[in-house]
Amino acid sequence: MSLIVQKFGGTSVGTPERIRRVARRIAAAKRAGHDVVTVVSAMGHTTDELVDLAAQVAPDARKKHKREMDMLLTAGERIAMALVAMAVREEGVEALSFTGSQAAIITDEAHTGARIQEIRADRVKEEIGRGRAVVVAGFQGVSRSREITTLGRGGSDTTAVALAAALRADRCDIYTDVDGVFSADPRRVPNARLLPWVESQQMVELASSGAQVMHPRAVELGARYNMPIRVLSSFRDDDRVATLITRRDPMQPMEGMVLTGLASDRGYARMVIRGLPPTMEAAARVLEAFGEANVSLDMVTVSEQGDGLRQLELTVKEDGVPEGEAVARKLVEELHAQGVDVRNSLTRIALVGSGMQERSGVYAQEFQALLRAGVEVYTVSSSAISIQVLVDADKENVALVALHDAFELAEVPGSVR
Amino acid sequence: MSLIVQKFGGTSVGTPERIRRVARRIAAAKRAGHDVVTVVSAMGHTTDELVDLAAQVAPDARKKHKREMDMLLTAGERIAMALVAMAVREEGVEALSFTGSQAAIITDEAHTGARIQEIRADRVKEEIGRGRAVVVAGFQGVSRSREITTLGRGGSDTTAVALAAALRADRCDIYTDVDGVFSADPRRVPNARLLPWVESQQMVELASSGAQVMHPRAVELGARYNMPIRVLSSFRDDDRVATLITRRDPMQPMEGMVLTGLASDRGYARMVIRGLPPTMEAAARVLEAFGEANVSLDMVTVSEQGDGLRQLELTVKEDGVPEGEAVARKLVEELHAQGVDVRNSLTRIALVGSGMQERSGVYAQEFQALLRAGVEVYTVSSSAISIQVLVDADKENVALVALHDAFELAEVPGSVR
Repeated sequence: MSLIVQKFGGTSVGTPERIRRVARRIAAAKRAGHDVVTVVSAMGHTTDELVDLAAQVAPDARKKHKREMDMLLTAGERIAMALVAMAVREEGVEALSFTGSQAAIITDEAHTGARIQEIRADRVKEEIGRGRAVVVAGFQGVSRSREITTLGRGGSDTTAVALAAALRADRCDIYTDVDGVFSADPRRVPNARLLPWVESQQMVELASSGAQVMHPRAVELGARYNMPIRVLSSFRDDDRVATLITRRDPMQPMEGMVLTGLASDRGYARMVIRGLPPTMEAAARVLEAFGEANVSLDMVTVSEQGDGLRQLELTVKEDGVPEGEAVARKLVEELHAQGVDVRNSLTRIALVGSGMQERSGVYAQEFQALLRAGVEVYTVSSSAISIQVLVDADKENVALVALHDAFELAEVPGSVR
Repeated sequence: MSLIVQKFGGTSVGTPERIRRVARRIAAAKRAGHDVVTVVSAMGHTTDELVDLAAQVAPDARKKHKREMDMLLTAGERIAMALVAMAVREEGVEALSFTGSQAAIITDEAHTGARIQEIRADRVKEEIGRGRAVVVAGFQGVSRSREITTLGRGGSDTTAVALAAALRADRCDIYTDVDGVFSADPRRVPNARLLPWVESQQMVELASSGAQVMHPRAVELGARYNMPIRVLSSFRDDDRVATLITRRDPMQPMEGMVLTGLASDRGYARMVIRGLPPTMEAAARVLEAFGEANVSLDMVTVSEQGDGLRQLELTVKEDGVPEGEAVARKLVEELHAQGVDVRNSLTRIALVGSGMQERSGVYAQEFQALLRAGVEVYTVSSSAISIQVLVDADKENVALVALHDAFELAEVPGSVR
């Protein structure tokens, strides 16, 4: 008999029919002898609707009334969890629901973006001990001063993994609307392969680089607490189709390079401030101004123009461009620089793998593949487990397909040297 | 009673006196009731001397006679392991030594840089069962076709961690000549703090970024196999002074940003090829030529010069500069570019931490600290767990001290938001 924490997202509990389907799954797992704790998100678009309502009552509510926003939004999971618990009872299995506060998911005080500090899951454990199916609201917690908080992006996945860690569950199952984790986005790369196994740290990198199946925050927590996570579809009855995320893939040799997959993240831009004076102070001033304006910088390069002046190249997220460009134009005036160029619509593509220390070969292969495909590369950087390139967004699919083919990611990997 | 794998490096077994000291440690651990497997490197400069000898017999032996180089070099650990086993027996404890081949450390066929595929440690287990202290040669293994191989850089640390994983040891102790892992190199940052605890993935990043206390390859293996690694000094009797590398730091909250430390890696250079035609093909040709010449690229940026032409900036390791510069000069001629600038003597500094998603604040803080200290930053890039900057090598210490102070790395960290 094992203890499994399951998480169902908003789509999976989006209609009464789907809620009944989730309930049948929970009941079946209970009858098979497992202990089951189920974390649920708010139904479908509930959260968006609540946000809309708030905006109609108080414009700018998300910034001005954070505490009350949390009160409001937590109603969404409360509805879903109560409905799921009822549906499970209809299946003849004892069940009850808990809010984040009741489940003692203790967070810091940061309304709308709280982080979990610890989980004192005594009540949950007690009810499991009584043989009941426990349903817990995702995305929400409570601070030490008893304020209701929400966890921000990736919140429900994070609740599920954190709860699994606190309960020392055998596994955390994340039900979603796809079959698992693929070697690349199957909508973009038709022969992308469903990965039966992904190592946690590589999944963190894939998720951070744009693979949307799970939030990196939740994967990171799973890696830290060594909690096996299974990603699978809530619309499929065969649970053998799934991806298991664990510390290591037991099919691989102890050492060796294995390329796992590709992820991409749209919405980058590159800003170049031309003709800056070649002084420390000028560069300092630019970076300070961007920091003050809170524009997130992804990569920064200083280069000499050849005429004695310098330019500063900044990679930013596209939503930071209007603000960033305004800052840059002011700086051009202030520092008597030559001008600002902005290249929008860039995509960042990450090739993720392990043991990529011998990187020069991989680099060359990556470039050759992109060049053959006619894809221009603007910037490249690498970490121990990935190589990231910045390309035009309209070349994203071409680039993904070219790299997927070049590195034979559709094949079951052996160890590559 | 626990099973501990210990590793002693070349310095720790560098003289007969030191070998006796190691033996006393092993004997003490056995008497305390532990099972002990000890992995040793070759004594002091033995390996260098053997390499010298080979060069006198056959110039270019390292490239031309790889199989025989492995045969030659493995003699180094054979000497050390036999001496250590004898010394342990002198202490009144039964002991015996095994080569990598005898310990069944199975590698691939790549002489001088083999990777471990698996370890069938039956003989080692049997001798442990008989109560004996087992001494195993580090750095060496055997291929499936019974050829003797060596593991290349980081080999002995890797042997120790892999053996610990295969034996399901309770811990792997890496004895070295420093007290453990510090928040920055204490020779450069006087108030650097000894870290009692470092999370595995952050240690991989620190090690990859130049922290020399352990090789990233071995740390990565430890993370993958969830093997706790303790780093401590072989010259100190108090083993409470040490750093424990494990999956997570139990003193930290479940989520939250924690900055761990700084590492730096000297010997980078930045090459700029100016006045390239603004075509795909030109950039392609440059990267292809560097790939063919096997010059490792760390970061690549393409930028517009303002006069309609382009420049390509390449960050390379300094040992690749002569070759890289020759390639670049040929390319300038071939592509009718304007010229090549090389900036040597750069250092790459990494700030490593967890939960750095909210990165814009950290970036700004990092820049402000470096700017106040008068340190020029050439390039910045970031991964999920680090921010890397490229600065002049003669500013390395100033930069490290400034960042160490700015991020209060000498203090015991709480969770930072």
